Amino acid sequence: MELLRQRILQDGKALNENVLLVDSFLNHQVDPFLMAEIGKEFARLFADAGVTKVATIESSGIAPAVMTAQRMGVSMLIMKKSPSVTLRDDTLQTAVFSFTKNNTYQLTVKKHFILPEDNVLVIDDFLANGEAAFGAIRLLETAGCRVAGVGAVIAKAFQPGMEKLRKAGYRVEALAAISRMGEGFIEFE
Amino acid sequence: MELLRQRILQDGKALNENVLLVDSFLNHQVDPFLMAEIGKEFARLFADAGVTKVATIESSGIAPAVMTAQRMGVSMLIMKKSPSVTLRDDTLQTAVFSFTKNNTYQLTVKKHFILPEDNVLVIDDFLANGEAAFGAIRLLETAGCRVAGVGAVIAKAFQPGMEKLRKAGYRVEALAAISRMGEGFIEFE
Repeated sequence: MELLRQRILQDGKALNENVLLVDSFLNHQVDPFLMAEIGKEFARLFADAGVTKVATIESSGIAPAVMTAQRMGVSMLIMKKSPSVTLRDDTLQTAVFSFTKNNTYQLTVKKHFILPEDNVLVIDDFLANGEAAFGAIRLLETAGCRVAGVGAVIAKAFQPGMEKLRKAGYRVEALAAISRMGEGFIEFE
Repeated sequence: MELLRQRILQDGKALNENVLLVDSFLNHQVDPFLMAEIGKEFARLFADAGVTKVATIESSGIAPAVMTAQRMGVSMLIMKKSPSVTLRDDTLQTAVFSFTKNNTYQLTVKKHFILPEDNVLVIDDFLANGEAAFGAIRLLETAGCRVAGVGAVIAKAFQPGMEKLRKAGYRVEALAAISRMGEGFIEFE
């Protein structure tokens, strides 16, 4: 997505070979017009996938996910990050390790918001190691529905998440896939 | 906002006189069409307020806030909930007590996303005791900008937040103001 790549080059900041700061337009200050364009692009890419629901992980994925869901004409599900295990009959949980924060959280969702006939598109702001995406997929498949694919606004293609997801048979679309970066430079695939 | 009140009556669930469950369309599963209508309504209500930015608190306010910001043609700022105090020159923090979760978090924002000439509309999903709204206002005013008002999707008007904010001189608009509720009934103002 050219508009996004241009924006990353213009306003993003690679702090080192692993950390990309995009908090002026994506995950702290948010540009709603860019989010709407992102939603439109995900809807176009997954138009043939029979998506019945969009899911995301709180909180940076919510803005692009709600725009995608609106465009696709389906509802959106926010998977919550709970610090501890909740033992309740109506919820599903799975442990997810966050490399960014170096901690583990319990990805949590209420069972009855995922139907067996659902075909869910997982949207997130970043795809790096794939821990969050695989966590979301585990929850969805445990609930008995299908996963239509994973849409990442930005993929760090030099980290293993994207390839692992594809090898596991999931469709992955990244609107901007970064092949290499470092202080002062960002390169796309 | 009639559409929202109808939806609350149809799909909301008052568990007791204080707890309203709206997680099938507002804060867990999210209806993007309703969010777009909510954004349109906030934009209409605050059309004359000279808003330059929309701010919200992660994570349930993000969906209505990004739709409001899109409609108003301004950017959106997500204030983060940090579990502990971060001592950094570029961030502003204030402690906020959450009655819902019975804990205190540090509402956190990067200074340079709030400009002195900004006039910020605070959007959140719920307004009850007003702790979160007053926290957001403290941060914004510490940063030196103006506060255009507070927009709550749902206000529990029987709790003190709305009145306290108005007494302190802030404009508050609630799209659905609940005057009284209990197991099996919800009444609007």
